Formats: sequence, C-alpha cells, structure tokens
Amino acid sequence: MTRVALDAMGGDRAPEQIVLGGLQAAREFDGEVILVGDPAAIEPLLGPDRPANVRIHPASEIIEMHEKPAEAIRRKRDSSMVVAAGLVKSGDADAFVSAGNTGATAASALLGWGRVKGVDRPAIATQFPNRHGRFLLLDAGASPDADPRQMLEFALMGLAYAERVMGKNKPKAHLLNIGEEPGKGNAFAKEAYELMAKHEWFGGNIESKEMFRKPVDVVVCDAFVGNLVLKACEGVAEYIMGEIKRAVPTGPAKLLWLPLKKGLAPLRQQVDYTEYGGSPLLGVNGVCIIAHGSSDAKAVKNAVLNGARAHEQGLVQAIRDSVEADIDKGIL
Amino acid sequence: MTRVALDAMGGDRAPEQIVLGGLQAAREFDGEVILVGDPAAIEPLLGPDRPANVRIHPASEIIEMHEKPAEAIRRKRDSSMVVAAGLVKSGDADAFVSAGNTGATAASALLGWGRVKGVDRPAIATQFPNRHGRFLLLDAGASPDADPRQMLEFALMGLAYAERVMGKNKPKAHLLNIGEEPGKGNAFAKEAYELMAKHEWFGGNIESKEMFRKPVDVVVCDAFVGNLVLKACEGVAEYIMGEIKRAVPTGPAKLLWLPLKKGLAPLRQQVDYTEYGGSPLLGVNGVCIIAHGSSDAKAVKNAVLNGARAHEQGLVQAIRDSVEADIDKGIL
Repeated sequence: MTRVALDAMGGDRAPEQIVLGGLQAAREFDGEVILVGDPAAIEPLLGPDRPANVRIHPASEIIEMHEKPAEAIRRKRDSSMVVAAGLVKSGDADAFVSAGNTGATAASALLGWGRVKGVDRPAIATQFPNRHGRFLLLDAGASPDADPRQMLEFALMGLAYAERVMGKNKPKAHLLNIGEEPGKGNAFAKEAYELMAKHEWFGGNIESKEMFRKPVDVVVCDAFVGNLVLKACEGVAEYIMGEIKRAVPTGPAKLLWLPLKKGLAPLRQQVDYTEYGGSPLLGVNGVCIIAHGSSDAKAVKNAVLNGARAHEQGLVQAIRDSVEADIDKGIL
Repeated sequence: MTRVALDAMGGDRAPEQIVLGGLQAAREFDGEVILVGDPAAIEPLLGPDRPANVRIHPASEIIEMHEKPAEAIRRKRDSSMVVAAGLVKSGDADAFVSAGNTGATAASALLGWGRVKGVDRPAIATQFPNRHGRFLLLDAGASPDADPRQMLEFALMGLAYAERVMGKNKPKAHLLNIGEEPGKGNAFAKEAYELMAKHEWFGGNIESKEMFRKPVDVVVCDAFVGNLVLKACEGVAEYIMGEIKRAVPTGPAKLLWLPLKKGLAPLRQQVDYTEYGGSPLLGVNGVCIIAHGSSDAKAVKNAVLNGARAHEQGLVQAIRDSVEADIDKGIL
C-alpha cells in the first residue's frame, strides 16, 4: 500500500484546501494519505465521512512561504514539511508532497534523503501543455550556475518521469536552444549537446517556440533559463486569458459568451496548473512532489496521486538505473 | 527630409508586400522611401498613382533567408540588403529597413557602419505587449556568450529607444532575473545587477512573469535568454490563440462568436507583431530596423515609419551620449 506524506500546513490555502485535497485523493486510490501538521487544525477539517485511509501525523511548526529555505528547515525540525520528508526517510511513507515554500520543500527532500548516486544536481520538472499533449521542462528550479553535464542528468531523469509517470512510450529528450542545428547556442549549450548526442533518446536542439508546436516529451535547460521561460509563459498565458475575460461582454449580452466558454473549457483545463498535480523534484532518493503555492484541493489531490504513481512505477530506481548505466559507459 | 532605405527584396513576402508597405509609408510621412532592389521586379509593383517621395535604387543580388550572414554579405556586395545599408553609410539615406535574413541584416549594419564608440555588442530589441502598454526586451538577437557589462549597454540603448521612439517619459530599465531581491540569480546576473545599480534609471530585478503584469519600459537580458524567452512567449500566444480559434463553433452557431471576436480585436492587435514595426538593432552607427521575416505591407510600413522616427529623434546620438557619459564616470 502506497503511503503519501502530505504537508498539511504548507501552501497559500493551507490547511483547508490541502486537507480537502488529501481527502479527495484518499477516495480515489487505495493507498494511504498521511496528513502531517497540527492535529488541532487538521482534525476539524476531516468532516464526518472521513475515509479510513487518511490519518494525521503531528508536527508542531510551520515553515512560512517567505522564509529562507536552508535556514528554515534547520531551525524548524518539527515543521510539517521537515517531518513529512522525514517519514519517507524513515520508511514510514513512500512519497512526500508539499505546496509550501518551494525552496524549503526541495531542501527538505535533498538534505533529508540525499541525491541519487551520480546525480550532481536534482531538478524540478514542470509540465507544459501544447496541441499534442503535455511535455516536461526541466530544470525549472531556479538554482543558478549549472554545468553542461547536468543537462544530461536532467534528460535521464526527465525521461524516467515521462515514461513512468506521464505514461509516454519511448520518450525523447531535446535540448532547449536558440537554433536547431548542432553547433548552435552558447558554449554551455554546445557542450551539453555533445554529451546528449551520444544517446538514442536525444531529439536534438529545440527552439522555445517549437516546444509548443511539435510533439515533444522532455526539454532540458539550465534552471536560470528554465525559470525565466516557465514564468514568461505563465505571464503571457495570464495576460491573454485576462484580456479574453475583459473582452467578454457584460450585461445580458454575456449570454452570447456561453457557447464559446464551453468550447474553451479544454484550453482552460490545459493551461490550468491544478490539473498537473505538481512538479516532481527529480534526482533525490525518494519521491518528492512540489505543488504550486496557490494549490487548491484539486491540485493537491492530483499531486498526491502523482506521488503515489511515481512510487508505484519505481521512478527513483529507474533514475538510479539510467544514471548508473551512463556512468558505466563513461558518459556521465 | 528623412530618407529610408528599404530592402525591397528581403522577406518571405518580398518584393510585393515590401514595396506595398514602402508605398503606404511614403503616403504617411513627408520623408523619402528608397526601394533598393531589382528595378524590373519593383517597377511593376509601384502602380499608377506612385507617390513622388518613392524612388528605386538598383541592386542586382538577393540574400536568401537561409544563407549564412557573414558569408552572404561578403559575397553579395550588390545585394539589396548590402546596398541599402551602404546608402546609410555614404550619407544617402538616414535609416535602413529590411525584412530579410535577420543575421545578414544585422551584419550589414554592424560591419558596414561599425559600433557606437564604447558599445561592446549591439543588440536587437523587441517590443512586447502587456496590460499597461508595450515594453522593450533586449537583447533578443540570439548572439551567444554575453558579458555582464553588456547588460548595462543594453539598458542604456534600450532606454534611448524607449524614450525617443516609443515616446516613454523617463523610462526605467530592469534586469530579467529569477527573483526580485538584489543578490538573486546566477553569477552573470549578480554582476550585471551591480553595474546597473549605479544608475537612477535602474528599476531592479524583474521576474519574467512580472513583465506582463507591471508597467515596465525596458528589460535587459543576454541574447541566449532573450531569444528563448521571446520565442517561448510567441509559442504560448500562438498556441492559445490557435486553441481559441478551434473552440469557435462552426456552422450557423459561428455567429455567436462575432461579438466576442470584436471584443478580442484589441488583443489580437496587441499580440500582432505587424503593429510594432520591427525590432531596432541598437548600438550601431546608424538606424537599422529589422522587420519580421513574414512581414506584410502593414508591418513594413510601420518599420519604415519607426526608422524615420528614430532618425528624426536622434536615436543614435542619444545612445552615443549616454554611453559616453558612463565611460566618463568610469562605470562602463
């Protein structure tokens, strides 16, 4: 039975939406949801028909969104976040999910569990929609100053997630670059290309516009670029969707909008991060899913289910194996 | 009288749309449009009521979109592009506009005119829309491996364009970064921040999502990042607008779409690159406007008018002055 440790106190809408999401997940899978946090805050939210596969694990402290990650997790040893990550380390849970402070969530997992052997830098992978489905971009973790060799690690880790959790068949990985031909880009990109080109799964360079046009699975870049691209995309989408909203007529004429609104539902669903169920932190010795800070119950539910799936599909072992294979071949 | 040398043979829709755009511009300003290219191809497109302020300057060769820039401009000395740039150098024109091969356009200006004294690397600046108007992002030129010092140059050049050509009053420049606080980002960003922080016009770091939310004027980043962010934004916008199109009901129900379509017109106009009139190459000794490869007549017209405005507003001298001021202060 897969057990997911959910940080009930982390996120803009904690604990209400987090607990609600945990309950929803519990009703949809046969694993167990462990709500980690203040029992006095959680208990009243469980309601009368609380599923049997939900339980509370107490933790007395909370790491706030604005706190400095490394410092916060060192100081607040009994925070819901650190305790939830600890349950995975002690073998009492199989996956760790938090919508709290992203840096602290990543640090809890990284410092608590350590990196997969051979992985230099764990990465946060984010899902993007395009016409063909979804693809994974990593590293979107905002950790600066990457090494080209890490692009190869990111590809191996992203491919494992795409195959095991997103259900992609023989996924390919591309290198995000300013041109498609080999030899394009800055010194960093050229070196990363050489390393990746030794693999069958390598799809070559891809330009950022083409990610939204072609059927792609995994796109790698350094975290500085990844964060800027990710947030620029969010910004454009928000801007356009906002303008569309402003264009909707008010008053009775608003009714005219209804058929189109229905037609746009799939798009809204596609650009809705709550559908994706969070971003995995890949390359650590355990399953860690980082949910969006503003996650509602649905987003939390999907993050919990993704965490469970990642465990059941052997994500961490798959990453371990493919990294080891490259080390054996002398590529990594 | 401002004279704009327009590469009549460059662009996916050359020479028809280019010549048409040149004619439209000629009707809207009191300068002169010099159509550079094959007279046999251009002449028939001028029509019966050709404005008096349009003339043809012959050039026998054409640089194609796929050609290698440096090689092409060296080999094709009588290409419409090289000849048009040459007219600025010889003092026979005041601005150069091309929708042809971007790299070759930039190289024609850069190698033909040289850089403004003190400018290490010229930059291509692109306009983006947001709720508050338009802002300028540079460098979007896809030239790799920048130096942090160049971010300061980009800011000075972008500010000059924002003030002189976009009509912004006391514009501010931001550094594109993965966080807003000082000290954020990779080593490159930190160094660039220090250099920029010495100026009153510095607005601090800005995250890529916030560019689309706040009233910003100028945002600087290295060309690798700038190109990736620019094209990702284009990709997302194209994807969303495409999905909206697909959501429109077919058949008679399509009529329901009409009111909303009207409401969305301003947005379509905002995300429509043809409105912007091309991207200036800043930091060279002359006015060079690079129009989108797929420019239609309207885009070309706006590029020509922007080129004329840049000349009339003394853009190049303004850049020269602000770069020199920073050199005198020992900052650059």
